[in-house]
Amino acid sequence: MTALPPSALLFPVPSDIEVSDSITPAHIGDIAKASGLLEDELVYFGKTKAKVQLSVRDRLQDVKDGSYVVVTGITPTPLGEGKSTTTIGLAQALGAHLKTKSFACIRQPSQGPTFGIKGGAAGGGYAQVVPMDEFNLHMTGDIHAITAANNLVAAAIDARMFHESTQKDKALFNRLCPVKKDGSRVFASVMLRRLAKLGIDKTNPNDLTEDEIRRFARLDIDPATITWNRVLDTCDRFLRGVTIGQAATEAGHSRDTGFDITVASEIMAVLALATSLEDMRERLGRMVIGMSRAGNPVTTDDLGVGGALTALMKDAIMPTLMQTVEQTPVLVHAGPFANIAHGNSSIIADQIALKLVGPEGIVVTEAGFGADIGMEKFFDIKCRASGLVPQCVVLVATVRALKMHGGGPTVTAGKPLDPVYVDENIDLVTVGCENMMQHIRNAVKFGVKVVVSVNRFATDTDREIEIVRAKALEAGASAAIECNHWAKGGAGAVELGQAVIDACASVPSNAFKFLYPLEWSIEQKVEAVCKSIYGADSVEFTPLAQEKIRVFTANGYDKFPICMAKTHLSLSTDPSKKNVPTGFSVTIRDIRASVGAGFLYLLCGDIMTVPGLPTRPGFYDVDVDCKTGKIVGLF
Amino acid sequence: MTALPPSALLFPVPSDIEVSDSITPAHIGDIAKASGLLEDELVYFGKTKAKVQLSVRDRLQDVKDGSYVVVTGITPTPLGEGKSTTTIGLAQALGAHLKTKSFACIRQPSQGPTFGIKGGAAGGGYAQVVPMDEFNLHMTGDIHAITAANNLVAAAIDARMFHESTQKDKALFNRLCPVKKDGSRVFASVMLRRLAKLGIDKTNPNDLTEDEIRRFARLDIDPATITWNRVLDTCDRFLRGVTIGQAATEAGHSRDTGFDITVASEIMAVLALATSLEDMRERLGRMVIGMSRAGNPVTTDDLGVGGALTALMKDAIMPTLMQTVEQTPVLVHAGPFANIAHGNSSIIADQIALKLVGPEGIVVTEAGFGADIGMEKFFDIKCRASGLVPQCVVLVATVRALKMHGGGPTVTAGKPLDPVYVDENIDLVTVGCENMMQHIRNAVKFGVKVVVSVNRFATDTDREIEIVRAKALEAGASAAIECNHWAKGGAGAVELGQAVIDACASVPSNAFKFLYPLEWSIEQKVEAVCKSIYGADSVEFTPLAQEKIRVFTANGYDKFPICMAKTHLSLSTDPSKKNVPTGFSVTIRDIRASVGAGFLYLLCGDIMTVPGLPTRPGFYDVDVDCKTGKIVGLF
Repeated sequence: MTALPPSALLFPVPSDIEVSDSITPAHIGDIAKASGLLEDELVYFGKTKAKVQLSVRDRLQDVKDGSYVVVTGITPTPLGEGKSTTTIGLAQALGAHLKTKSFACIRQPSQGPTFGIKGGAAGGGYAQVVPMDEFNLHMTGDIHAITAANNLVAAAIDARMFHESTQKDKALFNRLCPVKKDGSRVFASVMLRRLAKLGIDKTNPNDLTEDEIRRFARLDIDPATITWNRVLDTCDRFLRGVTIGQAATEAGHSRDTGFDITVASEIMAVLALATSLEDMRERLGRMVIGMSRAGNPVTTDDLGVGGALTALMKDAIMPTLMQTVEQTPVLVHAGPFANIAHGNSSIIADQIALKLVGPEGIVVTEAGFGADIGMEKFFDIKCRASGLVPQCVVLVATVRALKMHGGGPTVTAGKPLDPVYVDENIDLVTVGCENMMQHIRNAVKFGVKVVVSVNRFATDTDREIEIVRAKALEAGASAAIECNHWAKGGAGAVELGQAVIDACASVPSNAFKFLYPLEWSIEQKVEAVCKSIYGADSVEFTPLAQEKIRVFTANGYDKFPICMAKTHLSLSTDPSKKNVPTGFSVTIRDIRASVGAGFLYLLCGDIMTVPGLPTRPGFYDVDVDCKTGKIVGLF
Repeated sequence: MTALPPSALLFPVPSDIEVSDSITPAHIGDIAKASGLLEDELVYFGKTKAKVQLSVRDRLQDVKDGSYVVVTGITPTPLGEGKSTTTIGLAQALGAHLKTKSFACIRQPSQGPTFGIKGGAAGGGYAQVVPMDEFNLHMTGDIHAITAANNLVAAAIDARMFHESTQKDKALFNRLCPVKKDGSRVFASVMLRRLAKLGIDKTNPNDLTEDEIRRFARLDIDPATITWNRVLDTCDRFLRGVTIGQAATEAGHSRDTGFDITVASEIMAVLALATSLEDMRERLGRMVIGMSRAGNPVTTDDLGVGGALTALMKDAIMPTLMQTVEQTPVLVHAGPFANIAHGNSSIIADQIALKLVGPEGIVVTEAGFGADIGMEKFFDIKCRASGLVPQCVVLVATVRALKMHGGGPTVTAGKPLDPVYVDENIDLVTVGCENMMQHIRNAVKFGVKVVVSVNRFATDTDREIEIVRAKALEAGASAAIECNHWAKGGAGAVELGQAVIDACASVPSNAFKFLYPLEWSIEQKVEAVCKSIYGADSVEFTPLAQEKIRVFTANGYDKFPICMAKTHLSLSTDPSKKNVPTGFSVTIRDIRASVGAGFLYLLCGDIMTVPGLPTRPGFYDVDVDCKTGKIVGLF
């Protein structure tokens, strides 16, 4: 870890790709060695990326974990307030300036929005992951593997329904368990899982009764219940709703369905929450794609595809090691949607990093969206699945967002900012601080320390910053620090780093607690989150949601944690309600079960799972300099 | 290159993945070093795969190319006759047994059929690429990159039509060339390409007239002319025909379209035919996605996406180095469909390999399908684009396929073979040899030597083999050799290797010639191929095809080579007509222009661009052994 010399910091700060190109990264093997990884634990992808084998966890099993810090934010503007940048900047400050062994653990960005309207997810300025183009494009192929795996499931669903529609039970069974050349017949190993689920205790296909043959061979999927969508990592809004099976070869089998963006696939959530290869195999096999006409869940293993999915995902389970501009090690792994999924990077990456930094070190991980969504899911879903105990929340706030909450005009991506956001306005900041204070009070409920990071913009005044700091301490934060890592690198977050070190050292080891126990009913868990975190007065369930609760409870899915699919632009379910809305009710429109990932997700309002491309997408500026081979124009 | 000791060869030959797992591959860095590659020219993907930088061609520009050998086959049964296995086995024989520096250059297989019904494309038995699971799944991500690039174009098409439909010219232009914060306005560099195409010689957006604004900003794509499909590398037949835009957010903009399998994307053909990064950039920008309502071609650069496609494809342009079971170096690169595209691996890989083996060495490359399709396209499309001169064709024949051509019953994948295929039958073989002889006579027309490889099955008799050999020589082959590399590795193809060495040494350097010159009209070129290669009496063009000829000629596309989209199961266009059909006519149903790839493809009959999944797909057997992390059940 090597601090950038002040002379290397340009002002004004160039574009992200220009900063990235100005840095010569260390060989990733050197970063790995400095982090305590052995050569045999690496799978190189060129000189700047390496996958890390899970065996490192076993080697270091007796090492005590480092401190575990999660970066989250207040309710943001649509422009984002710099959570990723703070995650990277804090790790840089700890590693390169405060001589504390540190890792940043972040999500792999979706490639789709890279060519649309979003900025990169590598952080930015002098607090970013390099090379940023390799981070933003393909990386080590994990998202591509998920696209392939997700769509193999989809193809298997429709092909199975097609073949079941044209064959009688016996013929279907004979095709599934054909007689081999030597006259023998065997069940594939994945078929034994289905037999076990059906309570059929036989291993020879010839021994099945007619009724058992029917039950085994006929999945009898009810097309109306299929929840499995196809996916692409592309912002292609015309795939949101599609009718498939329109060619003559499939005539009479058309079906209305849709695509999601790949990061919304349940397989992405599985990758993020799996704790081992074995665990991933089980999760990939128990994903529910819909119901049979008799009302029973149909799983990926029922389709016979769980093993093949694991084969497609076996390299993706390894996190990818990269580095910051200050050579801080970064583990990039998984990037589940933060609304219909839990929006946090992988458990495996955090576990590896916590062992590598050791008891004196600190791992900085990031939770998507605002603290009401990403942080709550980090605690109640991710930490519950991993058993890891966090010590500290870093809550990112900006004067710009607080002014919006205080009543400032609407902030829209791509449009000029209203003057109130660049001129001093004490009143707006003061009123808007309520939003931050609510998030601080929420975080404290989990028994962790809260450090507020105020990401300073050039137009913020000292008086504005001072108000934010005072209000943060008033609400229960251990510290509130002004930061400037975007322009200064780790040097701009040294004070933040020290506050985080102090916070981690002062939290009692048994302080952390979940918001709800899994034993509670679905309704109780939803009420706990809506009332305690969002500040709702009440929760309503539509008849559809109530029916789902009945079905899921009958199948034992009521013991999962809950994953709220809610806007991140408000503490409420209405994105236009800023600051701390009160007197509102949350309506649960529908509930879906991500049985492989291991949570229920509850739909409050419309969730958009494929972004669109604007009239002038970001791809207009992207090209390759054919002389140097370097990408230009990417952010 | 290390010959397998006879003691390592098991009999009966285990499954492909068992053979692959029994071999400990050398570190790919060692294979590279032995091949003459420098450490700096490699981009490692783990220990068994490395991408090779194109700079090696420049470093070796003064080295004379090695001999250039293409492996093709007679008209096959649906089971395939072992072309890939022969390609690998021959390279093994040359390298590990005949001490001739050799490379095999092969296509990356589509992952879709891997989980459906097809075997692997890594060769098989003791003539295969290892590790075969890494070869068959993901490899180094090139096909995933093509999926991403292809679908970005598709998203850009529909998004553009959507935005054009809702905005007037001026608004559209203002969005495409927005005024920046400092008041300036610039064209993105890709926009200058469109301006040049329109003959507008201006570089300041503010200088355009109203008419120029309209012409520049409005692509006015005619939806009925769009030929660009979306792609997935999945056997998902329900995507063959789809209606997109069915969600409420796109209401009123639905459109009927389809998906192809990724290897059918024009971008795959571009990758295979590009000769440099610059060349790929130009090809990726001039792909035609459809026509404007005024009848002008609309390109990817018109959509503004050519640079972004290049950014997505910049790593894919590097071939991937792997090895055979006998440590022969293999370059795997591109895998275009052999019917709607040209079905040959990349030019760049062949060029690199020819420099690395040097003048005494031999590069063995493979052409897809039968010689009437793959070989003809190898010569007339691939060699024309590369300027490389081939010396020798290796034509793979099997007694099984020749018996089919001689009148044997239908051969169907997955069904037991009729006894005539396992018992001696001199008559069927003798009659069926006509098919082989036609392919030999065809190959000789290109001025190259022909060596026939008879891949021997256990049930073939000496008398049957002898007939095939005699008939091959009668038709003009330089040699005809019985081979058994599948069971014996390179040792089973030593005699074949020696015959190939002799053939390459004896061919005059100026012997190679194309079948037709590019200056001929489209009709003339099609007639040359259909009559001279397929043996057709005549060619007919539907009115649709005639209209396309008119349009393409008007746009200058008539100077491209032609790529016939025809069944590989017959020399004619009717797959049921075996051996050497006569007295038939070829009907050209439609013609499409792959302007980026640089050929016209002519549709004769229905071309299926998405395979389906059978009732019991191959994925049932695939799983991961979670203890060892190894894939099981893959072929």
